[in-house]
Amino acid sequence: MPVLGHTQYGKAEVRVVRLFRDTDPHGIADHNVSVALSGDFADTHLSGDNSRVLTTDAIKNTVNAFAKEHGDAARTPEMFGLVLARHFTELPQVARARVNLETYPWRRLDAGGVPHPHAFARDGSHVRTTTVTRTADDAEWVVSGIRGLTVLKTTDSEFHGFLTERYTTLAPTDDRVMATEVTAQWWHGTLPDDPDAAHVAVLDALTSAFAGHHSLALQQTLFAMGSAALTAVPGIGEIRLSLPNKHHFLVDLSPFGLDNPGEVFHADDRPYGLIEATVRRDDTPDPGDAFDPGQGW
Amino acid sequence: MPVLGHTQYGKAEVRVVRLFRDTDPHGIADHNVSVALSGDFADTHLSGDNSRVLTTDAIKNTVNAFAKEHGDAARTPEMFGLVLARHFTELPQVARARVNLETYPWRRLDAGGVPHPHAFARDGSHVRTTTVTRTADDAEWVVSGIRGLTVLKTTDSEFHGFLTERYTTLAPTDDRVMATEVTAQWWHGTLPDDPDAAHVAVLDALTSAFAGHHSLALQQTLFAMGSAALTAVPGIGEIRLSLPNKHHFLVDLSPFGLDNPGEVFHADDRPYGLIEATVRRDDTPDPGDAFDPGQGW
Amino acid sequence: MPVLGHTQYGKAEVRVVRLFRDTDPHGIADHNVSVALSGDFADTHLSGDNSRVLTTDAIKNTVNAFAKEHGDAARTPEMFGLVLARHFTELPQVARARVNLETYPWRRLDAGGVPHPHAFARDGSHVRTTTVTRTADDAEWVVSGIRGLTVLKTTDSEFHGFLTERYTTLAPTDDRVMATEVTAQWWHGTLPDDPDAAHVAVLDALTSAFAGHHSLALQQTLFAMGSAALTAVPGIGEIRLSLPNKHHFLVDLSPFGLDNPGEVFHADDRPYGLIEATVRRDDTPDPGDAFDPGQGW
Amino acid sequence: MPVLGHTQYGKAEVRVVRLFRDTDPHGIADHNVSVALSGDFADTHLSGDNSRVLTTDAIKNTVNAFAKEHGDAARTPEMFGLVLARHFTELPQVARARVNLETYPWRRLDAGGVPHPHAFARDGSHVRTTTVTRTADDAEWVVSGIRGLTVLKTTDSEFHGFLTERYTTLAPTDDRVMATEVTAQWWHGTLPDDPDAAHVAVLDALTSAFAGHHSLALQQTLFAMGSAALTAVPGIGEIRLSLPNKHHFLVDLSPFGLDNPGEVFHADDRPYGLIEATVRRDDTPDPGDAFDPGQGW
Repeated sequence: MPVLGHTQYGKAEVRVVRLFRDTDPHGIADHNVSVALSGDFADTHLSGDNSRVLTTDAIKNTVNAFAKEHGDAARTPEMFGLVLARHFTELPQVARARVNLETYPWRRLDAGGVPHPHAFARDGSHVRTTTVTRTADDAEWVVSGIRGLTVLKTTDSEFHGFLTERYTTLAPTDDRVMATEVTAQWWHGTLPDDPDAAHVAVLDALTSAFAGHHSLALQQTLFAMGSAALTAVPGIGEIRLSLPNKHHFLVDLSPFGLDNPGEVFHADDRPYGLIEATVRRDDTPDPGDAFDPGQGW
Repeated sequence: MPVLGHTQYGKAEVRVVRLFRDTDPHGIADHNVSVALSGDFADTHLSGDNSRVLTTDAIKNTVNAFAKEHGDAARTPEMFGLVLARHFTELPQVARARVNLETYPWRRLDAGGVPHPHAFARDGSHVRTTTVTRTADDAEWVVSGIRGLTVLKTTDSEFHGFLTERYTTLAPTDDRVMATEVTAQWWHGTLPDDPDAAHVAVLDALTSAFAGHHSLALQQTLFAMGSAALTAVPGIGEIRLSLPNKHHFLVDLSPFGLDNPGEVFHADDRPYGLIEATVRRDDTPDPGDAFDPGQGW
Repeated sequence: MPVLGHTQYGKAEVRVVRLFRDTDPHGIADHNVSVALSGDFADTHLSGDNSRVLTTDAIKNTVNAFAKEHGDAARTPEMFGLVLARHFTELPQVARARVNLETYPWRRLDAGGVPHPHAFARDGSHVRTTTVTRTADDAEWVVSGIRGLTVLKTTDSEFHGFLTERYTTLAPTDDRVMATEVTAQWWHGTLPDDPDAAHVAVLDALTSAFAGHHSLALQQTLFAMGSAALTAVPGIGEIRLSLPNKHHFLVDLSPFGLDNPGEVFHADDRPYGLIEATVRRDDTPDPGDAFDPGQGW
Repeated sequence: MPVLGHTQYGKAEVRVVRLFRDTDPHGIADHNVSVALSGDFADTHLSGDNSRVLTTDAIKNTVNAFAKEHGDAARTPEMFGLVLARHFTELPQVARARVNLETYPWRRLDAGGVPHPHAFARDGSHVRTTTVTRTADDAEWVVSGIRGLTVLKTTDSEFHGFLTERYTTLAPTDDRVMATEVTAQWWHGTLPDDPDAAHVAVLDALTSAFAGHHSLALQQTLFAMGSAALTAVPGIGEIRLSLPNKHHFLVDLSPFGLDNPGEVFHADDRPYGLIEATVRRDDTPDPGDAFDPGQGW
């Protein structure tokens, strides 16, 4: 007999933009909010009895209404996620609520050389991510993060001393280009008072470490980056990094009688190395349900 | 002190196309292969000592070489994933190998009204997915799946009797359009002798159930689809479905003096409902490491 | 002094789905409609005097209302585009109206082995495209087309005898894989009575020619495909084809002691060859404004 | 009889990264180069006689070799495009060469609070575009541009006084959000001595005008932006702008007893208004072949 296992449902990708226009300069908070609820929802699956189902449309309405009612919280994805998760877990049938937010950074535009109070440009260098999870018995986790941050170093990267076997043809190198697109998520064991400042601190720590680290392997740089983040924000319990090695291959120009001392590269699309790891404090507790596996459970 | 937690690394998205040209008609197997290895790899992270590191370049070479050496296995993603996972776990430092494959279906092209033996067109209706996971102590899991299959029903879908609260404005309906893009993964408790035939059987069960089920909720349809898959292929232990509700909103044409009895719809991009659940047999064991959470662990 | 040159404006990407539910089996027409109007619209640009501006919101409403009012026409993108273009050119300030449609093919789903009257799956093999252009002085052009059709041949493709110069390193070949993703647009000098049948006829001609042609160059295959389309549908005046050469590189397995007689290939993303040309009848008149350059003019 | 019309062919999307590492700080030029050649190439289409065909592989090699040999030119897409176009038109069979470049801006990363000499982050706010076209009889055109620049203003935008007819339902407004993603191309009647400085000047002019302009219509803002660009860089003959109106709809919160004075918006995906126009100097000559229609001719 087929039986129902884990379930979750909700409204995904509510694009809500909250403006703050009471005083100059205006402010903007631009979120893409997804809510997933788990709990006593078997009936709707098994018999189509929807009496416990909070419609996904109502979930969307709640996100929009809360952007108004909880305007201050809406400025910051961590706070907005918390106020939403706390609301949804008030429903008795909800055992767990998870709120995922993508937040798009904007910077002020200049007009006539000074920042204009009402105009913005998207800062496309990265997307800010947040996952807030809360259970009916008051366990709460906040995970912040980024994705899409593309960085490159032109030197200070080596890779040698690796295993050689039948299928190994890679030539060792003591000088290569290293580029990656950073996806990182960090769990706040203790939520910072100022999540925006903490976010900037982690971003700086990650990029600073990437830039300054003399790399013997992308794995090693990952650990340096993760460690730097933990050092920069003591409230972070663990950080998970996913770093694709965006290969830049030195082009062989010898058929054309040209040398190529690290000058001309082909930036390849696929395949790419993919290096992933968790860096944590030795005394950090288990993160429980903090991280969203992204596979619907 | 920062410490290293879970790690995995490998080569992602190796686009390998294996042709079978010995006899007519020719055959084609078109895969996008990603390999992730976990194990005794702390040194490369902590000190840049790469002596245990099998280069991701060698991983890529292995995939290509195996497509030649294990040509028969390469015809079927489940078998190709198995032969690769078994190979990588032979390395003593590898505790777990996970192989993810996307396989692109092709159909034969006609020329002059008959199937041409050497020409193909991509069947864009879905992508076939496979995850093979194997540990050093011989635990092995095979998960098959699909993504991207977009289906729609013009009627036979109702949604009413749901919870109403402050933020609920949705009007109940006994006749609506229901559309979704199916992502499904199923774990073979027992691997089928013919994975291709099993794949077709699951695809048919899913689409047949979607089409024939009189739906009182997408959640209910999900359970019907999952149950149908389990019935069609007894070796499947559990199936995980992720179904976005791709909203088709009835357009209000009354400002133009027109009625609209279920004829003209706006197909909205975002937001969308997202319904996810696992359907399993009551006696299926825990799937262990079968499913890839997709978050690098 | 800056002056205004060409202008056009409208609503882009109206996702309208028209269902036909009066009788079984139900029918579906799924379009993405973009309308661009040119004419006497300088005032809105120069002074913000919008008195001649038909709002883009009204353009969207018109598309939806016409899907209801002109339901039969809405079944076929050529006819739907014509009825819309004729409507917009009735506005005296409109000198030219251009309607672009993407139409998504659906096929019926089976349930219990027979086609279900109410259920569909997206046929992802290609997207059907249409451009209808009409001027205030009654010139009218209809262009049909496809994009996204990915095809591949495993043999019957050669490439040799090409120019060699300083930067030429390619080895000639008498047997290679050839794959492309077809974008094609054809102008109907005479509109067919049955655009759907004509569309199928062109699709068959293109794929048949691709499959059956013994290719000495992708350029030569392009001309064969274009010629086949003109032969299949005499009303077509000219066809424009854009064929990327989606390179499949034979992988060198010799470092692993393996040969590779046309069996294992790497499907590369970028760069790719891009072959484009027009094939026309020697007596076809100039296509005038038939083809949308896609650059806003 | 089918005959051949316009043809062009080449290698598209060569991802070439040129590093400048001789002195600190290092420099980077990151291009995506596409070359299209037209001319005496009928034979390859008609008979598969490839004797005049410069292989697309050689075209790719030329791009890479020139990145080395013409390193200074490779710093700037306009110069790199010129040196490539001039080279390809030396081939007698080439009547016209067109080089399209996408150039990805990078900014220096800090480490320890100061810019690191070897580390960069992608500036994702826009992509720089360039089209260089040259004919065998020495006509030459250089077009610079941007795409992907997303900007928003929270006020200073009105839209009223528009035409009303049967399908018009839009409510006039004297205060709305206006957001767009700027695609712009400008033809240099006279090539600037410093293309990078000119590029910055145009970018600033466009964003400054967007921010500072009190808009009565997006069309009006477009003209203001175009005019500002022409003023900022006198060598520009004309500029073509394509501005989607990325609708931000005020959410109706009244069902929840909440007002919404321009605070909470839904950022909609589709449909969107699309406003396109050319702004030119009254004495600018015809741009001839400057602009790439993007449709393969």
